[in-house]
Amino acid sequence: MTKNTATLLVTCPDQKGIVAGIADFLYRNGANILHADQHQDAENNLFLMRVEWDLNGSAIQPDNFAERFDEIATRFDMTWQLKLSQKRPRLAIMVSQYDHCLADLLHRHQSGELACDIPVIISNHRDTERLANFYGIPFHHIEVKKDQKAEAEAAQFALFDSLDIDLIVLARYMQILSPEFVKRYPERIINIHHSFLPAFIGARPYHRAFERGVKLIGATSHYVTEVLDEGPIIEQDIDRISHRDQVEDLIQKGRDLERIVLSRAVRWHIENRILLYANKTVIFD
Amino acid sequence: MTKNTATLLVTCPDQKGIVAGIADFLYRNGANILHADQHQDAENNLFLMRVEWDLNGSAIQPDNFAERFDEIATRFDMTWQLKLSQKRPRLAIMVSQYDHCLADLLHRHQSGELACDIPVIISNHRDTERLANFYGIPFHHIEVKKDQKAEAEAAQFALFDSLDIDLIVLARYMQILSPEFVKRYPERIINIHHSFLPAFIGARPYHRAFERGVKLIGATSHYVTEVLDEGPIIEQDIDRISHRDQVEDLIQKGRDLERIVLSRAVRWHIENRILLYANKTVIFD
Amino acid sequence: MTKNTATLLVTCPDQKGIVAGIADFLYRNGANILHADQHQDAENNLFLMRVEWDLNGSAIQPDNFAERFDEIATRFDMTWQLKLSQKRPRLAIMVSQYDHCLADLLHRHQSGELACDIPVIISNHRDTERLANFYGIPFHHIEVKKDQKAEAEAAQFALFDSLDIDLIVLARYMQILSPEFVKRYPERIINIHHSFLPAFIGARPYHRAFERGVKLIGATSHYVTEVLDEGPIIEQDIDRISHRDQVEDLIQKGRDLERIVLSRAVRWHIENRILLYANKTVIFD
Amino acid sequence: MTKNTATLLVTCPDQKGIVAGIADFLYRNGANILHADQHQDAENNLFLMRVEWDLNGSAIQPDNFAERFDEIATRFDMTWQLKLSQKRPRLAIMVSQYDHCLADLLHRHQSGELACDIPVIISNHRDTERLANFYGIPFHHIEVKKDQKAEAEAAQFALFDSLDIDLIVLARYMQILSPEFVKRYPERIINIHHSFLPAFIGARPYHRAFERGVKLIGATSHYVTEVLDEGPIIEQDIDRISHRDQVEDLIQKGRDLERIVLSRAVRWHIENRILLYANKTVIFD
Repeated sequence: MTKNTATLLVTCPDQKGIVAGIADFLYRNGANILHADQHQDAENNLFLMRVEWDLNGSAIQPDNFAERFDEIATRFDMTWQLKLSQKRPRLAIMVSQYDHCLADLLHRHQSGELACDIPVIISNHRDTERLANFYGIPFHHIEVKKDQKAEAEAAQFALFDSLDIDLIVLARYMQILSPEFVKRYPERIINIHHSFLPAFIGARPYHRAFERGVKLIGATSHYVTEVLDEGPIIEQDIDRISHRDQVEDLIQKGRDLERIVLSRAVRWHIENRILLYANKTVIFD
Repeated sequence: MTKNTATLLVTCPDQKGIVAGIADFLYRNGANILHADQHQDAENNLFLMRVEWDLNGSAIQPDNFAERFDEIATRFDMTWQLKLSQKRPRLAIMVSQYDHCLADLLHRHQSGELACDIPVIISNHRDTERLANFYGIPFHHIEVKKDQKAEAEAAQFALFDSLDIDLIVLARYMQILSPEFVKRYPERIINIHHSFLPAFIGARPYHRAFERGVKLIGATSHYVTEVLDEGPIIEQDIDRISHRDQVEDLIQKGRDLERIVLSRAVRWHIENRILLYANKTVIFD
Repeated sequence: MTKNTATLLVTCPDQKGIVAGIADFLYRNGANILHADQHQDAENNLFLMRVEWDLNGSAIQPDNFAERFDEIATRFDMTWQLKLSQKRPRLAIMVSQYDHCLADLLHRHQSGELACDIPVIISNHRDTERLANFYGIPFHHIEVKKDQKAEAEAAQFALFDSLDIDLIVLARYMQILSPEFVKRYPERIINIHHSFLPAFIGARPYHRAFERGVKLIGATSHYVTEVLDEGPIIEQDIDRISHRDQVEDLIQKGRDLERIVLSRAVRWHIENRILLYANKTVIFD
Repeated sequence: MTKNTATLLVTCPDQKGIVAGIADFLYRNGANILHADQHQDAENNLFLMRVEWDLNGSAIQPDNFAERFDEIATRFDMTWQLKLSQKRPRLAIMVSQYDHCLADLLHRHQSGELACDIPVIISNHRDTERLANFYGIPFHHIEVKKDQKAEAEAAQFALFDSLDIDLIVLARYMQILSPEFVKRYPERIINIHHSFLPAFIGARPYHRAFERGVKLIGATSHYVTEVLDEGPIIEQDIDRISHRDQVEDLIQKGRDLERIVLSRAVRWHIENRILLYANKTVIFD
């Protein structure tokens, strides 16, 4: 029952004939299209598309796609990626002490909501080790000592390399990554921030939301870029609060937001639904 | 600045090559695609598509479209409609005494949110006549006397015919239409029901919601079919209530839902975003 | 840091002087009120109140409350309950094979969100035994064979009795309880139904929601009464769906609703925030 | 059917006996309490209360309240206000060219949702004059010329004075008020800002939301203080957007948010449900 599909993600300058070109290519190669969605950004003259087809019975296969598609890609000046459902993305989850996002991701993974492998959980604490064990995920404790972040990150990089990690999920990992870390994994690190960005960038957003007297709290999942909390937003959601809610209530309500907003982002990334441009995300249906 | 586009809505059995066929047709005819969205229903083996292109500079024009498209339509056994942005749909709004949905629609129409003409407002009361006048819309009072619904509807049909009405919007029109009325305007009557259907079908839904002690109230816009409140749902939304809310509060909160849920349905219909099948709606982006 | 408070829940016919009577009683006895909330139902001439005070430094204590409060209770014809924060309610969770609500409740319990004890998890399957063990909760497998429901329920009752159970939570327990079961635990069984009741009462609500083409799905937590899915509603919430969502998507999205809607109901019950009348709930702030 | 009630709003240092004192006072004076709600802020040691009673049949009347209540007010060091349902607050609405919030407020006023008088609409443009006339509200055009804001505000103050204005509603009034204006009407000016503050303070929030690529847009109603967009927040709400939404779509969706968020704030203010402290609002039920 595991599906066997290919997903093509395309970005190129907008012009006439792109859809015809791609659709005709797939048709000539006997591909049965399962989903297709596209977006045109008139202001930036950009065309973006996601198309998924059944590899069973299709003449285009992973090993001949690049060669066959080259003519079209060149004609339209495309940037493209081909993703295969049977090559499951490999996630590393990084976490500190709060375990609610981690527990949520692991439960979803176990239920089959997240079609990925999770070869490692890395934490600067040992609090979540038992949870990782319960779900059968290898746990690595990498302490982050003051002034020794570089050493810690080197150990993390070694793990990512040896495990062939595709995506790093910061599931309430309370450390700021170095610029080197961020540069090393462009568009491959997803973070959950506990505010509706761009409100309350930085530390202690629930405390500042409480101070400001807002009536809504939020959470934001985004790709990590070099500027803190300024990366492309993938998903946001909010919950209503009132004057009765103290900081602790905000934190408790926020946990539900964080779980849901992070898990959606991870799922969409895994399902190859996200394209990035102009520091924004396109989320394909 | 009024746009000059054509929108093609297609339904056909799903098979390979449909997108390629349509896209290639548009490309060969020099059409600049502005939006395209499609949906496949695997269970029903159906393919549905909406594609909109700029008529300026395109070789396919309203008067030659059918002829040119015929070969593709036949090949794929398509049901299709072509809609032109410059042929604005003509709405009749029917209303009784509650004027909140009417006032909302008229204000949106005036602001340019609804790209339609409204040649007539019909009511079985005179309460909304002044409002209609303010917005410059002709108002017709057609009384619906007991046992004389057929006469009233005959007068309504005459108006619809003479005014070339495309869509009938029941903006809290508190009369049940006869089966003849409904049959005469298939997929062309939109109603707002003040509950989240299928809960509270029929009369006095707010009172029954209050009785049942629900924590959410809702509103549903749908196409009218012969079975009361069973037509294809276009849009729904809800608001939260509490034990403090009395029936009057439900009614008041509900007005905001009704306004928004009805106006979205009308706008999507006008923008040719809706396709119907299996008593359901597909709402294209 | 565990609080030591008493919560008084009062229902009585509405009349002048009730608040003055209660407030004066608490003041004379040196009670420091932490929270107070009240509700008046004019239609039913009912007064309902929840008041919580600090037992530390208060002259009224659990053992003398009834005697001292008797005069006021009698004067106003009150029905009242006194709940103590240090006597944590004891929950039995019943579950079948779907474990998402159970995993959610156990994680919240562990995080301190739910101030209760959970001395037992009962299931008619063994699927959740490992999860129960992980969280250190005793697991009892009680098979429910066809035509032997009475025997199974007798075993359940024995467990509830021996464990002094206060509240039974049906966390997707896919069995219908017998009338005897329901009668035995009035206002003490909370169920999660996977629709926005009263829509889709009964079996397979997601399938029927999909069939009907609704644009919102919901979940409802309620007290179980003898009529299926007709008990007092505690909480409801919804999520938006589109024509792209298949039944499996509804089920997946619904899991998040079920988790949140059930956990809120359980928390409010545990925090003694709920009063019942006229088959409705009052949820005190 | 117009009600005849008094509403007492109280703020004082928290201590034992306050509720007993107020409740006993009302009881001794034969007042029938219709609604009571209170809030305690432990951190700031503050007690806040709203209590509404029926003046019919009560011994405490507007003209003897201050004298009779003085002993209690003094004992507990209270700040208090007494509001009478039959003295309807008098609103001035200020608006520029966008008329959606104005049209919404006027329609709600006419439907009886807003229990206030609106003796004047002031605008720096003439666009909304016809709408004001339709609803029978006097319209004053006060131009705000560059470098002549003081003159314009003087004319506005004269109107407010002569009309005995209680509350000034900025219904998308695109001018920044002078510090003198703000100081003159403390806690008596309500503004609608078209973002979920504190995100996108200042000009062009929809454009900046679009630039940032947020997935939610919002609106915030707040009291105006001397620092732009930093006043106490009364209400906020959001709507979901996607990559398909252009700035114009954000503006259109935002209009619905602005209408609802502003009208709620105005209604709560009129119903004397709002108390202010620490630059925050308490919204009583």
